[in-house]
Amino acid sequence: MYKLYGLSTSGNSYKVRLMLAHLGETYQWEEIPSSLVMPRTPEFLAINPNGKVPVLILPDGQPLAESDGILYYLGHGTPYLPEGRLEQAQVVGWMCFEQHSHEPYLALPRVLQRFPDDPRHADLPELYKKGYFALGVLEKHLSEHDFIVGEAYSVADMALFAYTHVAHEGGYDLAPYPAVGRWLQRVASQAGHIPITAPPGPVN
Amino acid sequence: MYKLYGLSTSGNSYKVRLMLAHLGETYQWEEIPSSLVMPRTPEFLAINPNGKVPVLILPDGQPLAESDGILYYLGHGTPYLPEGRLEQAQVVGWMCFEQHSHEPYLALPRVLQRFPDDPRHADLPELYKKGYFALGVLEKHLSEHDFIVGEAYSVADMALFAYTHVAHEGGYDLAPYPAVGRWLQRVASQAGHIPITAPPGPVN
Repeated sequence: MYKLYGLSTSGNSYKVRLMLAHLGETYQWEEIPSSLVMPRTPEFLAINPNGKVPVLILPDGQPLAESDGILYYLGHGTPYLPEGRLEQAQVVGWMCFEQHSHEPYLALPRVLQRFPDDPRHADLPELYKKGYFALGVLEKHLSEHDFIVGEAYSVADMALFAYTHVAHEGGYDLAPYPAVGRWLQRVASQAGHIPITAPPGPVN
Repeated sequence: MYKLYGLSTSGNSYKVRLMLAHLGETYQWEEIPSSLVMPRTPEFLAINPNGKVPVLILPDGQPLAESDGILYYLGHGTPYLPEGRLEQAQVVGWMCFEQHSHEPYLALPRVLQRFPDDPRHADLPELYKKGYFALGVLEKHLSEHDFIVGEAYSVADMALFAYTHVAHEGGYDLAPYPAVGRWLQRVASQAGHIPITAPPGPVN
């Protein structure tokens, strides 16, 4: 059985919970409190020196860090990872877009709502500027395609859905992005979909 | 033949030039000036709505953006991309680490050296703090492994080499990271290696 270290409210952790739900995989869950609330323990840093959740422990005990790398691993040999060379490279490219140009700007404003005294509130205008630019990139792509890669639902959609669909919790207005809105509904209607508020599976 | 849009001094563009050198591929090069010097043209935004270099144009005209996605594409079927399921997921995971936790902090200080009036100089202490943390993650990993994934040189090494080996140009001191230093030498000694200062291949 898989074991998943994560944070219930984290979009990066949700990506993996969503994929495991699609696959019908049971897993053991261990809640790791937010790094803004408490520093990472030596025990957790021994599992992931980068200190981030999620981390998936494979049945043989091997830890696998980085949410999008975990999605790629779980997607292997399933309909959720396209098989073509170009399509797989596009999945990797969109995952890197998500981690570099999208997630940093959509995730932090959402976290900051819970930490009103954090000095990074001063960064919000710049975060919104870059986040809206990323949403514009998505809007253009999704006005021409039903899904992120290869005209079928894949781990690339899960990677980008996680923080896009809760962007409003960080103060974003998605109304000017109608193609993104339709895609969010398309993703949420996939078989086996769970909301981010679904309780993580079997608690440790 | 491939066509590569890039910026000569960019580490992200260098990743692709390095991989093409390893493969012995000729390609057409088109220099795209720094986005700090001039805004992206409508022509370039039509190729990559995210406005970033590099972009590889495949022989059939298909554009492929995101440096690490391009590396993954070019690695397919070569010794530079491991074949195993776990190893490929680890490559993707380290690429996401690079784009999220490493490149943003190592690349920007280097760029700022050329733009002394940029207000982001005020962010340097925070950038260094996070960049040195990422170097610590790399140091731990490389003190236990010769290469990033699977004990062989791969596109994951290229992804992380690009900005690590020029970190000193942004003011970083790599002396406290001896395993990183040995790995940089190991990468630079691979067959077909080119330095970042090598002129990009056939100019348009």
